Amino acid sequence: MKVVQLPAASKYKIEVCFTPALLPLYNTENTIAVVIDIFRATSSICYGIENGATAIIPVSKVEECAAYHGSECLLAAERDGEVVAGFDFGNSPFAYTAEKVAGKTIVLTTTNGTHAIQLSRSAEKIVIGSFFNLTALSKWLAEQEQHILLVCAGWKNKFNLEDTIFAGAVVDKLQSAGYIPDDASLAALDLWSQAKGDLRGYMKKSSHSERLKKLGIEKDIDFCLNVDLTTAIPVLDGDKLVKL
Amino acid sequence: MKVVQLPAASKYKIEVCFTPALLPLYNTENTIAVVIDIFRATSSICYGIENGATAIIPVSKVEECAAYHGSECLLAAERDGEVVAGFDFGNSPFAYTAEKVAGKTIVLTTTNGTHAIQLSRSAEKIVIGSFFNLTALSKWLAEQEQHILLVCAGWKNKFNLEDTIFAGAVVDKLQSAGYIPDDASLAALDLWSQAKGDLRGYMKKSSHSERLKKLGIEKDIDFCLNVDLTTAIPVLDGDKLVKL
Repeated sequence: MKVVQLPAASKYKIEVCFTPALLPLYNTENTIAVVIDIFRATSSICYGIENGATAIIPVSKVEECAAYHGSECLLAAERDGEVVAGFDFGNSPFAYTAEKVAGKTIVLTTTNGTHAIQLSRSAEKIVIGSFFNLTALSKWLAEQEQHILLVCAGWKNKFNLEDTIFAGAVVDKLQSAGYIPDDASLAALDLWSQAKGDLRGYMKKSSHSERLKKLGIEKDIDFCLNVDLTTAIPVLDGDKLVKL
Repeated sequence: MKVVQLPAASKYKIEVCFTPALLPLYNTENTIAVVIDIFRATSSICYGIENGATAIIPVSKVEECAAYHGSECLLAAERDGEVVAGFDFGNSPFAYTAEKVAGKTIVLTTTNGTHAIQLSRSAEKIVIGSFFNLTALSKWLAEQEQHILLVCAGWKNKFNLEDTIFAGAVVDKLQSAGYIPDDASLAALDLWSQAKGDLRGYMKKSSHSERLKKLGIEKDIDFCLNVDLTTAIPVLDGDKLVKL
C-alpha cells in the first residue's frame, strides 16, 4: 500500500485576515495570500479562468476599468451588487461561461474582491479561492510549504460570514498538514463545522445574502455555493490573474 | 401569572467589532459601546468596581500612568501580559480584591483593553463587560433601547477568541429582545454556542491562553471564566470608570 506522505508543514502558519482593513497587521513575507470573495468576485474569477479566459485583470476603481474601453478586453464593473452602467457585465458567475469568456481578457472591478487583491500585493504569491476550487486549491497549498494567509474580502472592510466560512473550509482541508493556526483560523474552522452540513441554509442568515436577494440574484448565491465545480487556481502574474 | 414584557427593540442594531482597528468603520452615534477584554483587563475592572474601588482611570500609555506617581492612586500597568516594572500591579483580577481596592482610585494601562476604551470614546456611552457581569450587563443593555456595539479588544488589533465568545454570550442573552444582528454578531453567537458547554475546555485552544500559560498565570484565565460572579456595571464617566 502506498502511503501518502503529508509535508512536514508544522513550522508554517495558517492565518485568516477577516477584512482587508486588517491586512497591514500581517507579515506577508514568504506567505501565500488566498483572496476570498465568495459572493461573487472570486467565485466568478475561478469560473472564468476554468472556462478558458486568457486573463482577468483586477483593478480597484471603475475609472481604471473604463480606461480599457476601446481595447479588445471585456469590461466588468460591479458596485454594491449591481453592474455599473456602461459596462459589459458585473460579477455574476453566469457571465463567465466558456461561451462568453474563452480566449478573452477581462478587466474587472468589484466592491470588495478586487480591493482585497490589490491590498494583498506584498504577499509572495496571490491566488484566488472560492468553493468552486476548494479541494484543488487546498491540495496545492499543502504542497507549497509556505505560510498561508486567507484574506477575506468582507463587505466594505467589515467582516462577513460567507468568506469566513470558506476560509474555515480551507483550514479544515489543511488540518492534517499541521499548520499553526491563529485564533481567526480556529474561529473560521468552528463556523465552517457548523455550516457545512447545510451550507445553503446557513448562508441564508448572512447579511450579504439578504443584500443580494433584494437585488434578485439569489441564483448567483446558490451557484457560488457549489463545491469543487472547478480545478483551476487563478494566480496573480504581474497585473493579471491567469491559470496556475 | 406576571408576563415580563421585553422592550420592542427591533429597530436597534447589535454589532460586534472584532478589533479596535475596525472601530472607525462603525457609526457610534446613539450607541452603547461595550468594551471587552476577557483576559484580563475588563474582567479585572468589573471585579475591582464590584469590590468597592471608587474609580478606575483607563489610560493608553505607561507614561500617562506613571504621571500619577506620588498621588494617592494605585498604579496598574501591564504590557504583553506582565506587570510593568515599578508599578503596584498589572491586570490580574486577584489584585482587585476588596482588601486591596475598596475606596481607592486605580490608574490602569493595559496592552489591549484600555486602548479599546480610548478608541470607543465617540460612543454615546461606554460600559465594561466580562463573564463576571454577563447577566447584569445584558439585562441593563436590553432596557436602554439604543444600538449596541460590542467592542472586542483583541490582541494588538487582531481578532481573538475569548473576547468574541463573550460577545456571542451577550448576543445570546439579547436574542429575545429582537435586535438586528450583523454578520459578526451571528458568528460570535455561533462560536459561543459551541463554547458554552465547556468554556474552559474551549478556551484552551486560544492563542492568548497559550501566551498567559507561558507566563504562569493560568489561574487568572480560569478565574476570568467565572460567569455572573458580580453585578456591577462599570461605566465611563468623563475620564473615570465608575459603578453605574
